[in-house]
Amino acid sequence: MTACIMCRRWQDEPDLRIIELEHSFVQLNRDQFFPGYSFVIAREHYSELFHLDQQTRQALIEEVNQVAGALYQVYTPTKMNYELLGNMVPHMHWHLVPRFDTDPLWPRPIWSELHRDKVLTPEQYRTEIEKIRQALKPTECIGS
Amino acid sequence: MTACIMCRRWQDEPDLRIIELEHSFVQLNRDQFFPGYSFVIAREHYSELFHLDQQTRQALIEEVNQVAGALYQVYTPTKMNYELLGNMVPHMHWHLVPRFDTDPLWPRPIWSELHRDKVLTPEQYRTEIEKIRQALKPTECIGS
Repeated sequence: MTACIMCRRWQDEPDLRIIELEHSFVQLNRDQFFPGYSFVIAREHYSELFHLDQQTRQALIEEVNQVAGALYQVYTPTKMNYELLGNMVPHMHWHLVPRFDTDPLWPRPIWSELHRDKVLTPEQYRTEIEKIRQALKPTECIGS
Repeated sequence: MTACIMCRRWQDEPDLRIIELEHSFVQLNRDQFFPGYSFVIAREHYSELFHLDQQTRQALIEEVNQVAGALYQVYTPTKMNYELLGNMVPHMHWHLVPRFDTDPLWPRPIWSELHRDKVLTPEQYRTEIEKIRQALKPTECIGS
């Protein structure tokens, strides 16, 4: 069993699963203090962008982009924040955070002040996840 | 004259210029509390990843990747941090920050605690910039 919590996260937190993509797993953050805060987690145990071959890097970025676009569509934030840190858990995971000019930390980064985690009910997690899944679906043409 | 400070930054801070790339300008952050902290600033006034066409997005990410690799080579950090925020200045600019397990905020994000800016001498800025420029050069074959 791997010691990396990010390698295990998809298995360990089934209630937060949004979608499996070719190069990544997408999960909602359990703390929803920032509504829509999600992770795009590389399937492989990479840590730096430049450890990936170009094709994989570009495909992964397209997945990050796709999820960011879906979150933007669902939550209509003022700005999306994208962060690839990994100081505590180096396994590549992107923090995608819809930010609003009404949120208590705006316009500062999410890390600039500690906050109490906002935990949702199981039903609320399912509702948020379903909205994001719907936004990730390719648009179907009417009549097709 | 544009009101966006990021549109003007290359002109306004010539002493921090590292390199002009096809889709971005690369500049050292004046505050060097985190040694090597640099910006990759999109030439165009975009704000979100999904506002770019795929080809431009991928080319820009390759530039972010190239600069991250050069910073890693020069500073040999424990981890690179990559952040695209834009809450204060939406014009796309990537924060690329070499992080060390010896830095006072490690392993927390750079925003988790305020610090006094570390301003270098003009000569020190030139020295750091020259090291990064050298690392950005394609490797030449001996004898070529």
